[in-house]
Amino acid sequence: MGNVLEIIPLGGVGEFGMNCMAVRYDEDMIVIDAGMGFPEESVYGVDVSVPDFDFLEEYRDSLSAIVLTHGHEDHLGALPYILKKFNLPVYLSHFTAGLAERKLEEHDLLSDVLLHRVEPRQVVEIGPFKIEFIRVSHSLVDCFSLAIRTPVGTIIHTGDYKVDETPVIGEPIDLRTFRSYGQEGVLALLSDSTNATVPGRTPSERAVIPAFEEIFSETEGRIIVSAFASSIHRIQIVLDVAQQFDRKVCVLGRSMQKNVEIAEELGYLDVPDGLLVSVSDTKHLDDDEIVFLVTGSQGEPRAALAQMATQVYKGLTIEEGDTVVLSARIIPGNERAISRMIGHLYKRGANIIEEKRRLIHVSGHASQEDIRIMTEAVRPRYLVPIHGEYRMLFRHKEFVKNHLNFPEDNIILIENGDVLELDGERATVVDKREIGRTFIDETGFEEIDSDTVRERRQIAYDGVITLVLTINGETGEMEAPPEIVARGIIGMDGSNGLIKEAQRVVSEAVERATRNDREDVTLLKEHVRVELKRFIQKQNGTRPVILPVVVHV
Amino acid sequence: MGNVLEIIPLGGVGEFGMNCMAVRYDEDMIVIDAGMGFPEESVYGVDVSVPDFDFLEEYRDSLSAIVLTHGHEDHLGALPYILKKFNLPVYLSHFTAGLAERKLEEHDLLSDVLLHRVEPRQVVEIGPFKIEFIRVSHSLVDCFSLAIRTPVGTIIHTGDYKVDETPVIGEPIDLRTFRSYGQEGVLALLSDSTNATVPGRTPSERAVIPAFEEIFSETEGRIIVSAFASSIHRIQIVLDVAQQFDRKVCVLGRSMQKNVEIAEELGYLDVPDGLLVSVSDTKHLDDDEIVFLVTGSQGEPRAALAQMATQVYKGLTIEEGDTVVLSARIIPGNERAISRMIGHLYKRGANIIEEKRRLIHVSGHASQEDIRIMTEAVRPRYLVPIHGEYRMLFRHKEFVKNHLNFPEDNIILIENGDVLELDGERATVVDKREIGRTFIDETGFEEIDSDTVRERRQIAYDGVITLVLTINGETGEMEAPPEIVARGIIGMDGSNGLIKEAQRVVSEAVERATRNDREDVTLLKEHVRVELKRFIQKQNGTRPVILPVVVHV
Repeated sequence: MGNVLEIIPLGGVGEFGMNCMAVRYDEDMIVIDAGMGFPEESVYGVDVSVPDFDFLEEYRDSLSAIVLTHGHEDHLGALPYILKKFNLPVYLSHFTAGLAERKLEEHDLLSDVLLHRVEPRQVVEIGPFKIEFIRVSHSLVDCFSLAIRTPVGTIIHTGDYKVDETPVIGEPIDLRTFRSYGQEGVLALLSDSTNATVPGRTPSERAVIPAFEEIFSETEGRIIVSAFASSIHRIQIVLDVAQQFDRKVCVLGRSMQKNVEIAEELGYLDVPDGLLVSVSDTKHLDDDEIVFLVTGSQGEPRAALAQMATQVYKGLTIEEGDTVVLSARIIPGNERAISRMIGHLYKRGANIIEEKRRLIHVSGHASQEDIRIMTEAVRPRYLVPIHGEYRMLFRHKEFVKNHLNFPEDNIILIENGDVLELDGERATVVDKREIGRTFIDETGFEEIDSDTVRERRQIAYDGVITLVLTINGETGEMEAPPEIVARGIIGMDGSNGLIKEAQRVVSEAVERATRNDREDVTLLKEHVRVELKRFIQKQNGTRPVILPVVVHV
Repeated sequence: MGNVLEIIPLGGVGEFGMNCMAVRYDEDMIVIDAGMGFPEESVYGVDVSVPDFDFLEEYRDSLSAIVLTHGHEDHLGALPYILKKFNLPVYLSHFTAGLAERKLEEHDLLSDVLLHRVEPRQVVEIGPFKIEFIRVSHSLVDCFSLAIRTPVGTIIHTGDYKVDETPVIGEPIDLRTFRSYGQEGVLALLSDSTNATVPGRTPSERAVIPAFEEIFSETEGRIIVSAFASSIHRIQIVLDVAQQFDRKVCVLGRSMQKNVEIAEELGYLDVPDGLLVSVSDTKHLDDDEIVFLVTGSQGEPRAALAQMATQVYKGLTIEEGDTVVLSARIIPGNERAISRMIGHLYKRGANIIEEKRRLIHVSGHASQEDIRIMTEAVRPRYLVPIHGEYRMLFRHKEFVKNHLNFPEDNIILIENGDVLELDGERATVVDKREIGRTFIDETGFEEIDSDTVRERRQIAYDGVITLVLTINGETGEMEAPPEIVARGIIGMDGSNGLIKEAQRVVSEAVERATRNDREDVTLLKEHVRVELKRFIQKQNGTRPVILPVVVHV
C-alpha cells in the first residue's frame, strides 16, 4: 500500500474487447473505459459480456470517476452496467457523450448520471490524478489518449489509436503533446496492441478515397456500401463521394442511422442539404442516383445487408446490377457468416467489392510503425501492452524489444486481474486476482450468471429429461407409471418404443430400491437418475441431464 | 427420362465439405465420394454431418457403386453411413482403401463391404459408365480425377487437385491423360472451386522444404511441427529434414499416428530405420535431437498441441526454448481457438512460426492458374464448378469467363439438390430437390435428427422448466404445491424467491382455470404454460421452454 500506484485491468488485456482498467493511488481509484465483449456463448442466449464489476466492491469508497477514451462498444458498452453498481461521474469527449447518452437512455439511467464533457488538452484533477486528454486518431471521432500525472510519475494510456496525420474529420493526432510528456519523463506507457502483428504503418482514413471515387465513377447501377456503423470518417467519405457523383444517400440499419444522427447533430459529420433521403424517396431515383449506406458488414443475419441479400428489407432487395462494397474488415469468428452472405449477394446478381481486392478499408489501430512513433514520442520507462489477446500483447513486446531496442525487463506483460504496482522505482505484479465476466441478455438487460450458462451448455449438448415418480407416501409403492418428458434426446420422439422402455427401466429401478432408499427422496431420485442415465447412454451413447421429481400422494 | 445423364450433387456444391454426387444414366446410378462436414451445431452434441442418403432411397434399384476420388474426410468420412443404407461396392485407390478400412472397422462394417482397389489409368466399367482413374496431385497421396465415358459424352470430375509437377511422393499430375480426353472431346468438366478466389499457381508440395531446412538449421531447442494428419507429403518432408539434421521424430495424436502407420505400411511414406521414436525414448534425447510431429494445428482443445500448450500431454509440455511450427492454414471458423492456443504457447515461452510469416504451408487445391491449366487441357463443352461455397463457385465462373473467354452460357452454377440433365446437346437444371443433411454424434455413431437439434437449440437459448401439477382426479383441486424444476433459467437458483413466485403464479392460474379446463389435461397444461411463460418473460425477458406434467391422484 502506501505510496504506490496500482494498475488492475478488469478486461481487454489478454482478450479482445471488454476494455476496462482500474488505476488506484492510496484511497483514490479511477476506472478507464467500460467496454463490452462479444463472447462465443451467444447460442446460450448471451448477447454480450461485461467485466465483473463486483470486483470493485471492495474499493467502493475509493472509486471516484470513470474516464472514457472513446465511444466504441468495447470501451463504452458496459457503462450502464458499471453505473448501476457504482454511480460515478464520467469524463468523456463530446461525441462519446452523444453515444453514451443514447445508451444510458435505453437503460433509463440518463437522469441519474453526471457526464463531464471534456476537450482535447483539457486537464481534469481527480484526487491525486491530473488527467490530460490528448487527441488521437482512430476510426471513430473525438478519441483520447490519457496522460495521468500521479504522485509516483506520469502514465499514459493510449486508448485505441493510430498515427493519422490526415484524418477525414478533425485534427491529426496530437504528437506534440505526447512528445512533451516524453521530454518531461513518462513512467509507463499502456499501449494499444490490437494491430501489433501488422508490419508497416496503418494508412490514413483518407487512403480509401481513391478507390471509392473509382468505384463510383465506374458504376452505373445502385451502390450499396456496408461499413461499421461507428466508422464516422468512412461515412463522411461516402457522403462526400456520393455528393461528388450526384448520388443521394439512404442510410439503413438502426445503429448506422443513430450514429449518423448523433455525428451530424454534434457537428462531426458534414451532411450537405438534401443529400440524405428516405427509403421511399429512393423509389423515385434512378439506379445511378442512389447509394445505400448499410449495416451488416459482418454478415449478421438480422442486419440490413444480410436481410437485403436473402429477403426484403424495408421494401428493398439486392438486384442484378447492384454493386455491394464491403468496406470493413472481417472480425475473426465471422468468416462463415460473411462468406454465406456473399454467396447470397452473388446469387442475386450483385457485383461485390471485397476489402482484399481494393483499398476500401483501413484499420483504426496502430500497426508496428505507428507503435514505433508512439513509443519514441513518449519514451516511457515501462511499456505495458494492452488491448488484445495474449498473442498480440506478446508480439507488441517482441516488436519493441527487437526493433526499438526497448529493454526487455521494462516491457511488462500483464493480463486481466493482474495487480501491477508502480512505486516510481520498480514495476511489479504483486497479485493475481480472478476477475470474471458477466454475461448479459440484452432483451431485458439482464445479467446471466455463469451457473445458468453452464446449465444451458449441459442441456444443449445431450438434451434433458424430466422424470416424474408418483409414490404412495405410506406404502412407498408407485401409484402410476413414471412420466417422462424429454427435450433434445435422440430417438425420444414418442414414435418408437424408447420412452416406454425408459419407463420400464425406471419402474424396475424403483421396485429394486430398498425401503430405506424409497423413503429418502434424495436417495430415490439419485437411484433412478443413475439407472435411467445408464440406460440412455447404452441406447445412444449420450449423457443427457436427468431431473427426477418425486410426487408423494 | 431416356437417353439423358443426370448429375445430382448431394453435398459439397454450395457449401464446404460433405462432398457427394450422384451420376445417373437410365437405370444405373453411381455415387462419387461420400464426405462428411463439420457443422456449426457442435454445441448441440453434433460432431459431424453427412448428406441425407435417404434421398437415394428412390434410386435403390439403380445404385451400382460408390467411387471415391481420395481419402480426405470431406470425401470419405460418410462412407460408413451410406454403406449402412446401401451396401454397394466401392472403387478407390490403395491409400484411400487403407483409410477406408480403418473407418469401416470402427463401424464394424469391414467384413460386409467390397473394396475394389484401382490403379491410375485403370478403367472400370460400371453399367453404362466407363470410368478411368486419372492421377492428380493434392495434399494427400494416391488421389484421382475421374473420366467417365457415358452414352451422351465424357464427363470429368476433378476431385480435389492442384497442378503439382514436383510432388514429394509419387508421380506428378497426369496432364497428358487429361489432354487426350480433351482432344477426344469432353462434354462436361466438374471442377474443384475451393481456391478459385486465389490468383496465381498453387506452389508445389516441395515448396516448403527450404523454410523447413532453415528452421531446422537455426533451431537448437526442441521442434514441434503441427500439420494436418492427412498431409502425407508434409509428413515426408518433416521426416526427411529431421533425418538430414540428425533429429528423431516422435509422432503424437491419434489421427497422425494412424495415418503415418497406414502410409508407411502401404509404402507411401519412406521412414528411415530408427527415425521414429516413442515418447519415452524422447526422454533420453537432447533438445536438438528431437522433433515432435503433432495434431492440433486448428487449436482443437483435445488435440496434442493444445494439450501440450495448456497442460501435460503424455508427460510432455511446451517449454521455454521450444520452437512450434504451425504448418497448416487456418480453417475458417477456427481463428479464435488458434489465437488462444498461440497465446498459451507464447506464455510457455515457445517461439512460434506461423504460416503467414514463412512458407511452411501450401494448399492442396487449384488456384486460378491451375484452374486455367486444367480447363485448357480438358477443353470441355460445359464447365460445372463444384466443391465450395457459392461464393467460390461464382468466382470460379467469373475467372474462366473473364480470363479464359469460356462462353458464359456454358458455365453452369448448380447447388446441392439441383438435378442437372445432360443429353449431349443441352445442359439443363430440370429439378431442384431438397436434400438435407444428417447430424451425427460420433460417440455412438448415432444419427441426431433435426428435431432433436432444434429442441436442443431452444433449450440452450433460454433454458427449460418442468412444471409438475398434482391434481385430484375427482375434485380437480391441486393436492400439493406445483413443483418447478428449472435448468438454465436466469435467477432460478433457489436462493431468491423466484421459484416461490412462479409457484404462486401457477397455483393462481390453476385456481382461475374453469372446471372444463381442469378436466382436459391438454387445456390445463397449455393454460399454466402460457401463464408461467408470461411471468418469466416479465421477470427477465427470456422465453424458456416450459414442459408441464399433470399427475392425477
